[in-house]
Amino acid sequence: MPITLSTSQSDFDARFEEMLSAKREDSVDVSEVVAKIIADVGDRGDVALTELTARFDRLELTPDRLAFSPEEVDAEIAKVSPEDRAALVLAAERIRAYHARQMPEDVFWTDPDGASLGWRWTPVSAAGLYVPGGLASYPSSVLMNAIPARVAGVERLVVCVPTPDGVVNPLVLLACRIAGVDEIYRIGGAQAIAALAYGTDTIRKVDKITGPGNAYVAAAKRQVFGRVGIDMIAGPSEVLVIAEGDQNPEWLALDLMAQAEHDADAQAILVTPDAGLAARVVAEVEALLPRLPRSAIAGASWRDYGTVILTRDLDEAAAISDRVAPEHLELCVTDPQALLQKVRHAGAIFLGGWTPEAVGDYVSGPNHVLPTARSARFSSGLSTLDFLKRTTLAQLTPGALAAIGPAAVRLATSEGLDAHGLSVSARLRTLNEDGK
Amino acid sequence: MPITLSTSQSDFDARFEEMLSAKREDSVDVSEVVAKIIADVGDRGDVALTELTARFDRLELTPDRLAFSPEEVDAEIAKVSPEDRAALVLAAERIRAYHARQMPEDVFWTDPDGASLGWRWTPVSAAGLYVPGGLASYPSSVLMNAIPARVAGVERLVVCVPTPDGVVNPLVLLACRIAGVDEIYRIGGAQAIAALAYGTDTIRKVDKITGPGNAYVAAAKRQVFGRVGIDMIAGPSEVLVIAEGDQNPEWLALDLMAQAEHDADAQAILVTPDAGLAARVVAEVEALLPRLPRSAIAGASWRDYGTVILTRDLDEAAAISDRVAPEHLELCVTDPQALLQKVRHAGAIFLGGWTPEAVGDYVSGPNHVLPTARSARFSSGLSTLDFLKRTTLAQLTPGALAAIGPAAVRLATSEGLDAHGLSVSARLRTLNEDGK
Repeated sequence: MPITLSTSQSDFDARFEEMLSAKREDSVDVSEVVAKIIADVGDRGDVALTELTARFDRLELTPDRLAFSPEEVDAEIAKVSPEDRAALVLAAERIRAYHARQMPEDVFWTDPDGASLGWRWTPVSAAGLYVPGGLASYPSSVLMNAIPARVAGVERLVVCVPTPDGVVNPLVLLACRIAGVDEIYRIGGAQAIAALAYGTDTIRKVDKITGPGNAYVAAAKRQVFGRVGIDMIAGPSEVLVIAEGDQNPEWLALDLMAQAEHDADAQAILVTPDAGLAARVVAEVEALLPRLPRSAIAGASWRDYGTVILTRDLDEAAAISDRVAPEHLELCVTDPQALLQKVRHAGAIFLGGWTPEAVGDYVSGPNHVLPTARSARFSSGLSTLDFLKRTTLAQLTPGALAAIGPAAVRLATSEGLDAHGLSVSARLRTLNEDGK
Repeated sequence: MPITLSTSQSDFDARFEEMLSAKREDSVDVSEVVAKIIADVGDRGDVALTELTARFDRLELTPDRLAFSPEEVDAEIAKVSPEDRAALVLAAERIRAYHARQMPEDVFWTDPDGASLGWRWTPVSAAGLYVPGGLASYPSSVLMNAIPARVAGVERLVVCVPTPDGVVNPLVLLACRIAGVDEIYRIGGAQAIAALAYGTDTIRKVDKITGPGNAYVAAAKRQVFGRVGIDMIAGPSEVLVIAEGDQNPEWLALDLMAQAEHDADAQAILVTPDAGLAARVVAEVEALLPRLPRSAIAGASWRDYGTVILTRDLDEAAAISDRVAPEHLELCVTDPQALLQKVRHAGAIFLGGWTPEAVGDYVSGPNHVLPTARSARFSSGLSTLDFLKRTTLAQLTPGALAAIGPAAVRLATSEGLDAHGLSVSARLRTLNEDGK
């Protein structure tokens, strides 16, 4: 049974806060282990990489075998069925079209003082994309990371994907091929992040690392942040579904379970003003769970973190959702556009009953790498912008410097930065002499 | 004497790499101290905050004295001269106008399959702005952090500025007033970052923390990243000046010293194809240094990190600059727009001899919080976007789901996520039944 709350309960706020602050991830601190791994790869490069891969992935490699050869990729992707290939190509096309719209424009204008100002976007030169291995080795993650990078114009695109016991997912390699990945390494964990950040003889370092991963990967990304760029620290996934009474309870139950099946730490939350609908959805989940292949995972998630919140109305549901700031938000209501105006914090919003969250994981076009653990309060999903950086531009005429320079001199002097002031006033003096 | 390199030297690459990899910051690891401070503020809140402020800033406070009262602010800003006030107002207006241009547009379109897609930008609800105290308590930093937040629509804007021995800079408080800061706390260091991230009885927590700071502040921001958003880890500042022979050597020397006077760890680099100009600039620096109030700092920076690089031509100078990826780049050349096309990695670019970097620190309009330590390879200066987050939107019609849903089912099945597939196929089944 999920946690059931109602905003009409007198202790609702306390219980809601308790639910919000429940730690869903293991609190084991892996930062020391990870720091050692990073230092080891930094010091010993490929040797450390092969040793660590042997230990953690039970895979004996030599440096020349760290990368998949084109022939290995060819052989693996030949195993993919035409139907799977077609689905992946459709997904890639839609993701590319969406992310192409995110390319920002450069601007440069001249203001009334004669100062020409603006900015210019340029791509990161090299990006490393982490793809989790093992059970969660998802081809869709490859597309969601690699395609925005390619759209942004990144020149060198590297994927690291662990292959425990040498097992590789052919669809992951096909996704790399479709997305245009340049290099694919069969390494994972903190050692892969270290290799991408510091470089080894075999793997050149990159400028930015993106992609989700386990606790070790997250800790490693946190530690190399600053030396390279990173996207975000991904936590367990969550969905919040706001639903009205006329919505199909089976669909809602499936949407909740689609979240729950990711991970026992995932969280599925139903918020509705309709107690009858809530009961029907809970009953559907109970009926559905035993039939799911991943029922153990989904059941644990639903039992430990599944939550139903009854509200007075949809406005209150929207306010509750903003306090959660969910990664995924479904608005399964008659007028989703109206409700959209009332919510503010969410990674991705799915409008209306015909837009199950699962289409967003694969084919709708927007990115599925999204802010988790309430970080939608301050951050955004992966996008084309994550592979670009903006350089500000300024070009003054002598007249513009004459207009705004004296204020700079004044402020520099007040901050005790005399050379700053002198660098402006020396030019102003020349102007005045010329103007005589 | 600065380090002098020439690209025609046979060992140039090795010497250049040595210069690039020179660690300019103390490598003292403060992360353990900072972790204890953060835990202490998390556990004991205001009590820890006042104790730590007494210890580090020699300032005895009670919780009700953590914030500046409006009357205290009034009294302090009354001390500011009309000229300083006018300069600050001009700077604020220009910064506001520039950052207003950075407001992105929301988009929502319908594609040929009937899928409506887009995204929406919304502001972070509460932002905390860190302003360094003591010698480097800069009113310009307040404007550069607070104005983009206000332009973005942040509702609650908090500044933390340490006031060692109770000394406050009236211009900092005036800048807060001009920029529309809501709350100002006289706390600093890791304890200020902890208070902003975790909240105390007196200081409500925020969603995002920006602004530069010392090693403790940087370490604290790194540790709270994930719980709140942060902007970047700021390191020592640097400028790279590309100059041609006809440029004024005194101006160039002043621009280099304007960088060097920030900090003994700052770095000023001159890159020029003209050996005669290089010699004239070095001579100007030598003549200038004794006359600067901050000559000890600027002299140490110039002696330890100042660098002159002689190149064959401007193209090579541009390539050298890209390998540095400087925070500030001056193009003091006859045709700066042409050279602009040849460089790619820089935080801010100043075009032509009439655009000294110092105008960018104060009044030109672009932000002066910029990526340091070569991080312009992958990151951008502070902008309006840092106080916004983007939510992706998708709304499918039944027809759109029929068109793209089967590919989602296929991919979900291949990833072993059956509930994902079922959440789509249950809807497709209803469609097929309705379509009979």
